[in-house]
Amino acid sequence: MKVDGAHTRTIWLNDDGWSVEVIDQTRLPHAFQTLRLASVEDAATAISDMIVRGAPLIGATAAYGLALAMGADPSEENLTRSAAALLATRPTAVNLRWVVERLRTRLDGAPESERRTLAYAEAARICDEDVAINHAIGEHGLALIEEHRKSAGPVNVLTHCNAGWLATVDWGTALAPIYMAHDAGIEVHVWVDETRPRNQGASLTAWELEQHGVPHTVIVDNAGGHLMQRGKVDLCITGTDRTTASGDVCNKIGTYLKALAARDNGVPFYVGLPGPSIDWTMDDGIADIPIEERDPGEVTTISGLSTAGEVVSIRLTPDASTAANFAFDVTPARLVTGLITERGLCPASSAGLRSLYPDGGGDQGLDG
Amino acid sequence: MKVDGAHTRTIWLNDDGWSVEVIDQTRLPHAFQTLRLASVEDAATAISDMIVRGAPLIGATAAYGLALAMGADPSEENLTRSAAALLATRPTAVNLRWVVERLRTRLDGAPESERRTLAYAEAARICDEDVAINHAIGEHGLALIEEHRKSAGPVNVLTHCNAGWLATVDWGTALAPIYMAHDAGIEVHVWVDETRPRNQGASLTAWELEQHGVPHTVIVDNAGGHLMQRGKVDLCITGTDRTTASGDVCNKIGTYLKALAARDNGVPFYVGLPGPSIDWTMDDGIADIPIEERDPGEVTTISGLSTAGEVVSIRLTPDASTAANFAFDVTPARLVTGLITERGLCPASSAGLRSLYPDGGGDQGLDG
Repeated sequence: MKVDGAHTRTIWLNDDGWSVEVIDQTRLPHAFQTLRLASVEDAATAISDMIVRGAPLIGATAAYGLALAMGADPSEENLTRSAAALLATRPTAVNLRWVVERLRTRLDGAPESERRTLAYAEAARICDEDVAINHAIGEHGLALIEEHRKSAGPVNVLTHCNAGWLATVDWGTALAPIYMAHDAGIEVHVWVDETRPRNQGASLTAWELEQHGVPHTVIVDNAGGHLMQRGKVDLCITGTDRTTASGDVCNKIGTYLKALAARDNGVPFYVGLPGPSIDWTMDDGIADIPIEERDPGEVTTISGLSTAGEVVSIRLTPDASTAANFAFDVTPARLVTGLITERGLCPASSAGLRSLYPDGGGDQGLDG
Repeated sequence: MKVDGAHTRTIWLNDDGWSVEVIDQTRLPHAFQTLRLASVEDAATAISDMIVRGAPLIGATAAYGLALAMGADPSEENLTRSAAALLATRPTAVNLRWVVERLRTRLDGAPESERRTLAYAEAARICDEDVAINHAIGEHGLALIEEHRKSAGPVNVLTHCNAGWLATVDWGTALAPIYMAHDAGIEVHVWVDETRPRNQGASLTAWELEQHGVPHTVIVDNAGGHLMQRGKVDLCITGTDRTTASGDVCNKIGTYLKALAARDNGVPFYVGLPGPSIDWTMDDGIADIPIEERDPGEVTTISGLSTAGEVVSIRLTPDASTAANFAFDVTPARLVTGLITERGLCPASSAGLRSLYPDGGGDQGLDG
């Protein structure tokens, strides 16, 4: 999507033909800076430090990470070690595992001399597929937003965290329908959940909507229930880091609370779901999905722009107080109105997902 | 309760016999400072700038504000003007209106020469009554916590915002049962909701629990649902700024989301409710309670302690993004397991409240 009017992806191959460039998302919204990844270690650090984040972009970065690894040392031993290093970065997003398995399958049995070329080609393909998947999610979601179009006033969409183009290679999952609606001339306004502790909503979603000119209002995570009670939300759309075969949606911590409020107020709650985020090996999201626990420092301190124009970190809590930092929660399928996939809409259920993906985990992606 | 081991109230008369001292709650948790109020304007500013906050403490401060006004000019005109100035500070807490009406009734018909003395005496009485009310709430809530006592491990209580002693004159409403349980040797642990945007949980609740030695963990507002899903919360207790005669609970924005999560997970959800916070004139909380909208700057910026040890404010959102800042929401009575009042527990319903307050609004407070 657009940065200062110019079209930009979140990850791309540099002109040198081997190193990879990403947007440093820890600097947004206060500065737009990119970062060069020159090794699999760089890629792993970019994922674990959340320089890149969002399940699809984590997958794309991992793919290029393995390509960088194969460029440095195409041995089986290095492939195994690099895959393990990438898998260890973040436990919740299923795309990471999917990408690593896809690359391993691709490279399996290939001569070492060809692995570098094969890996780069596969990484590029994964990126292009992600863009196509999200574009398709956008088109299916656009129809949904059109259904909520009013004679006067905007369609009000509430979203949580960032499932925009910054979370993917381009377009986004939850935000793709919003961009398409906006571009199609449908009046749309987005309630942007701040999304503590890392404020991906207030920093990333607000920034990318602003860059694209989509009207939006930042709210604290506490506010969504009140807005729904007062009829100020027409529909919710979020992304997902992993959705089980039964339709349980794991997403940024706090998503579940918004789904509860949506159900209590008759507001439709949709999830933008790319096929690679479905975990066909799991049915019970609450029992089975591992929930990442991150550094409590993300809760006790926060960073932002000082009056002097510097990005600084400040402490919010008393010195002696401890904090806990669970990064995701699981929204049970029963609270999800529908899943917006690249293959169309379906109910959040085993039957719903199987109707669109009869092949299950065997053949994911746009081309089915 | 305790500050550095010494017993302290949140508001008191200075040794000069007329000026009033309060804790400057905007400085906590990073500094403990008090502020002298020497006029009704000082009192009104202390309320509107949230130097003091919490429905009961707002009431106590307003009472002393009128005493300060009567000390300066006991005329009917000044009484009317001062009452109006105080009522204009914050629209949601009903205690403010209750205190102003109580003082006006007390001073009505009294000679101007006696008004100063009467007003100070009434303000002191209101403070002492608040302490007694909260102590009684604590005792009734203690029995509730005892019911959840386990053979091993603490009783885990989740609370939102600050309804501790800092929100009252002493003891607090939601936290009074917790302090009493802790002091009685019951192992108790508090999940402290950060409570964006003003972080009363992370700054005030965490600070006062820490000063009293009560184990606690700060969490972002997004985390409560996940914790309840995983069985890590035994009960929720919050305060209230205004509760309708039918039991609808208006409290800090985000309370409603926690009540929904509690209901969805079978976790009891209780509200510490002092009689003066009941609005007997209203039945439908969602339709009738005015919800204060505050400065969007409270969402777009946040303050905390810099690494240099200074309290600084930083910007969180992109320059061009706007924000909305609703300060309260309403939890419908159907989601509230029970109300913990100074007269005992009751269901959140008209019948429940009438069973404890048969006199309705005619005679509030401890002595019934």
